[in-house]
Amino acid sequence: MRTQNGHKQQKTKRTTDRGNLPQEKSLSDRNDNLIFGRNSVMEALEAGRKIEKVLVLDGGTGSLRKIVGMAKDFKVRLEFVDRKTLDRISSGENHQGVVARGQVFEYANIDGIFEDANKKGEDPFILILDGIEDPHNLGAIIRTGECAGVHGIIIPERRAASVDSTVMKVAAGAAEYVKVARVKNLSRTLDELKNKGVWIVGLNMNETLYYEQDLKGPIALVVGNEGKGISRLVKEKCDYTISIPLKGNVSSLNASNAVAVAVYETLRQRETC
Amino acid sequence: MRTQNGHKQQKTKRTTDRGNLPQEKSLSDRNDNLIFGRNSVMEALEAGRKIEKVLVLDGGTGSLRKIVGMAKDFKVRLEFVDRKTLDRISSGENHQGVVARGQVFEYANIDGIFEDANKKGEDPFILILDGIEDPHNLGAIIRTGECAGVHGIIIPERRAASVDSTVMKVAAGAAEYVKVARVKNLSRTLDELKNKGVWIVGLNMNETLYYEQDLKGPIALVVGNEGKGISRLVKEKCDYTISIPLKGNVSSLNASNAVAVAVYETLRQRETC
Repeated sequence: MRTQNGHKQQKTKRTTDRGNLPQEKSLSDRNDNLIFGRNSVMEALEAGRKIEKVLVLDGGTGSLRKIVGMAKDFKVRLEFVDRKTLDRISSGENHQGVVARGQVFEYANIDGIFEDANKKGEDPFILILDGIEDPHNLGAIIRTGECAGVHGIIIPERRAASVDSTVMKVAAGAAEYVKVARVKNLSRTLDELKNKGVWIVGLNMNETLYYEQDLKGPIALVVGNEGKGISRLVKEKCDYTISIPLKGNVSSLNASNAVAVAVYETLRQRETC
Repeated sequence: MRTQNGHKQQKTKRTTDRGNLPQEKSLSDRNDNLIFGRNSVMEALEAGRKIEKVLVLDGGTGSLRKIVGMAKDFKVRLEFVDRKTLDRISSGENHQGVVARGQVFEYANIDGIFEDANKKGEDPFILILDGIEDPHNLGAIIRTGECAGVHGIIIPERRAASVDSTVMKVAAGAAEYVKVARVKNLSRTLDELKNKGVWIVGLNMNETLYYEQDLKGPIALVVGNEGKGISRLVKEKCDYTISIPLKGNVSSLNASNAVAVAVYETLRQRETC
């Protein structure tokens, strides 16, 4: 079991992202369940993901014909449409003549995250996102979490961005490697983690400087919503809370930058202390 | 003067951003010199920034009339246009009936950065961006640099994003507080900094772990282009180079996340060691 360091008090400000990035879209605005492009659609069909429908360019040749054959084999509904329809549905994405509606991403479960840590012979290192709404933030956090060696990322099912094609693109491939679990009730998941001996550390709330907190051992870092921070119920489950100092006039870090600082400090402590 | 730590060798990968964010636009695509909205245009006029032209909604009332008066006083060219024209020029930005073409941002000079450090009684802490092209990265870096207390950020005039209205928005107000200098020749600027006793530390290139490098004292952290990293001439001027370890399969961190890790480690060392 790990011990808690003494806390030096220091004036800090909230470090949650309140900035409105111009590229942000509302959650309902996005194509949550669309898969664009020939390779992506073929991979999704081969991986056996749930696909509702495949829309193919009428008269398409080459690998588009192969996709039509695959869709028939897998008994997936097919629809032949014109280029204009595909362009409209894809809103700027490069569809290459095919768009599928269905399961974009395969979520992991909590046990899988623990297995991953176990396989590597490491203490579990988990990121919990309590309501990150901007898909660009979610993608950047998945990328940085994977780079820092977290074993898994847990997100809630509701009032949060899910892993869609935008998130996967921003994550620059990281979503293929790090386990992302989506849970119904984050508060209950925290209890489950605590029962397994994981310390819950909330980012952004009080006066403990993040680098003065012992971050070794089995740990789950909790990051709150861009605007509202960590929700009350989740906050109550945190064993410790930490904050990142802000030396300037701006009142918060961007969410993914705050996560970068926290996960890399955790990694530094694990590798050196 | 500071001393250099011993370097523990460890296998690391490049930490430069090679991911293509979907919101990226090419440099020529953007409205580099446009100022949108009533307050922003009034502030620019009052601050005496170079304004080529002010486009005002024909028949506009209220503060739009005041802006017309100001433009006349300052002998700035006026053009009355319809709402459709303003919408088209603004491509989604909230123009509130007025758009100005001119100097969006007032750059600082190098002396101003040193004065800032001097006033605070701190060793100079500078960020040098060797060709960051994505305005979202530049904005996020300005925001995080300001939060970590850097005294200034230096960018080159050519082949790099400049501080436009998109950058200022992503920076969430930080561009008003941290000094940003734009220089013709980055390599010459590095010589100038070295003459003033500043150590030049390049991010992303070799095998020294960032947290094993002494980052106290007068320091300038150099970050390279998203794709190409630090240019040869600039690299040759670096006193040390450091890298951020990558524990997963993805080959790089996003540029602003890499900067976040490096500037906060610098701050940590300055405040604790």
